[in-house]
Amino acid sequence: MRTALVIGTGLIGTSAALALAGRGVRVHLADHDPAQARTAASLGAGTADEPDAPVDLAIVAVPPAYVAATVADAQRRGLARGYLDVASVKGGPRRELTELGADLTHYLGTHPMSGRERSGPLAATADLFEGRPWVLTPTPDTDTEVLNLALELVSLCRAVPVVMDADAHDRAVALVSHTPQLLSSLVAARLADADESAVRLCGQGIRDVTRIAGSDPRMWMDILAANPGPVADILAAVAADLDATVAALRGLQSADEEKRRSGASGVEDVLRRGNAGRDRVPGKHGAAPATYEVVTVLIGDQPGELARLFADAGRSGTNIEDVRIEHATAQQAGLAQLMVEPSAAPALTAALRERGWAIRS
Amino acid sequence: MRTALVIGTGLIGTSAALALAGRGVRVHLADHDPAQARTAASLGAGTADEPDAPVDLAIVAVPPAYVAATVADAQRRGLARGYLDVASVKGGPRRELTELGADLTHYLGTHPMSGRERSGPLAATADLFEGRPWVLTPTPDTDTEVLNLALELVSLCRAVPVVMDADAHDRAVALVSHTPQLLSSLVAARLADADESAVRLCGQGIRDVTRIAGSDPRMWMDILAANPGPVADILAAVAADLDATVAALRGLQSADEEKRRSGASGVEDVLRRGNAGRDRVPGKHGAAPATYEVVTVLIGDQPGELARLFADAGRSGTNIEDVRIEHATAQQAGLAQLMVEPSAAPALTAALRERGWAIRS
Repeated sequence: MRTALVIGTGLIGTSAALALAGRGVRVHLADHDPAQARTAASLGAGTADEPDAPVDLAIVAVPPAYVAATVADAQRRGLARGYLDVASVKGGPRRELTELGADLTHYLGTHPMSGRERSGPLAATADLFEGRPWVLTPTPDTDTEVLNLALELVSLCRAVPVVMDADAHDRAVALVSHTPQLLSSLVAARLADADESAVRLCGQGIRDVTRIAGSDPRMWMDILAANPGPVADILAAVAADLDATVAALRGLQSADEEKRRSGASGVEDVLRRGNAGRDRVPGKHGAAPATYEVVTVLIGDQPGELARLFADAGRSGTNIEDVRIEHATAQQAGLAQLMVEPSAAPALTAALRERGWAIRS
Repeated sequence: MRTALVIGTGLIGTSAALALAGRGVRVHLADHDPAQARTAASLGAGTADEPDAPVDLAIVAVPPAYVAATVADAQRRGLARGYLDVASVKGGPRRELTELGADLTHYLGTHPMSGRERSGPLAATADLFEGRPWVLTPTPDTDTEVLNLALELVSLCRAVPVVMDADAHDRAVALVSHTPQLLSSLVAARLADADESAVRLCGQGIRDVTRIAGSDPRMWMDILAANPGPVADILAAVAADLDATVAALRGLQSADEEKRRSGASGVEDVLRRGNAGRDRVPGKHGAAPATYEVVTVLIGDQPGELARLFADAGRSGTNIEDVRIEHATAQQAGLAQLMVEPSAAPALTAALRERGWAIRS
């Protein structure tokens, strides 16, 4: 790939442009707001000038609802040899392109599984996609050259290509991204009008469950509006489980021994299925989180305390796989949870103890 | 307080005993399994011998279902001047004690908001309660001396006393602890039978939402069985919200413009109420998480990389408030998110850049 055109210079488009431009591709930038394209250009993402000949690959990075019209328009103008989009849903844009009579042979729907809390070109970075899955949804009709251009883009962005059917992709992201988002919002929503005395009892559990409830509603409206069917299907299944859970809890309140037993069994079923599902969530490098051991260290709050801890941990030669800092609510002391390979835990614990750290056994 | 009796030497009882013993209180330890009490004693939590005179305070640390019978039995034997329990629900045990004709004047229901993944005396630590809320549920009939003994216990454990009504406590923990637990399990449960191709698209959002779905089902059965009513009430409210969300998503699928508009408004309402609720979740030191700024640093995976980062951050004199490490899924690179006071972010960013770190702007 020698030339590319990025249409839509928000977070994703500008990040891809930065990655391509940084690896020698000549990138043209376009946006319905020309000022955004000039901003992206000023960041080193390419040029805001129009290409004077068709580019190798046009990358359409606009909200889901605008993908089909933008791709079809670019094809009509003959701007590129191949066209792809990077929107977070894939089935709808493909169906709209079919209705518009677009050239589906030279189009590929893709979705890089990257994002961050902020949006716009100023939030973009060339490393946004590094190590992340980038879904490609080719069909038997997809031109091989276009597929190879997409694979080259993924490679230049240092992402990991994953081939899926467009509708399977939409069901998958409904499951692993859109459903957790809405349920996080629904749990958090219960706190909106809660008594302050209840809210102050919040601990790390609800903090984790509700973290993504803080996300931008406008961005999520765009995503959910483009994938309502698969999300509604999964939420309906969750709703059925939830109704059964409420019924099981009501059973636990019953004076009837048989109803209590059945209620207990229903609640336990939810908890055990939750265990089974959680075991499948990949951690770092695709490994299950259960494979790490946690070494918990009591830490002070002064500047440099974490540095001292990590320096001491580093001297032991241990590779820290993941870290979680848990703070006390009303005092300065906190806890650092260092996740390491189980075989490394005893040596790390001993090394930190030797250097005076308080370790939870 | 000079003497105490801990009945039930699991995680919570042994941790409290360790804190008291470490601060000079003579602690007697009892458990329905005498071997557990001897284990706790061997850890320095006190003596497994029976007290030969009534102690100042008896701390009943048994599962919720056994609290009332254990307190009533201890009172019958005249083991202490005051009695409290530390179970995670408060209304039920009080009602059972009333039915048993126990002396409620010299009993106080309490709940330290601490816990960890592991249980049993070997998981206990004297600092388990440091800085955590410890709920006390006195009534107008509670003897002042017993309340003061409880406040002394909380102080010796370096926890933060919070006074609440017993039933208000149960509704509060149903909201901030039991409901998030079950909804985390329900989201995770959807993954139990999902296609591997979908599961590999999991990102940090679903990882956070489902973390506590990995908790021990037996412990949660004990907790939920003791608080089914308040949890069912809140889950029923979530279920109503969830049904409305499913209906709103179905509206977004409609060909009818008015139904789509109404669906969009319904989905947006959930997202915005989620924002509002999330804003109320206290972070470290009770501050809202939104008050921190995030400095995101690209890190390698070799031993010592985090140490080097924290050492460099420490040299800048910045106080890191919280840390999150986010790893790429298929490569060695990851991201460290350093949370700092907004005023400290520019200096930290500059200091890290100067030392060669790649910072996300």
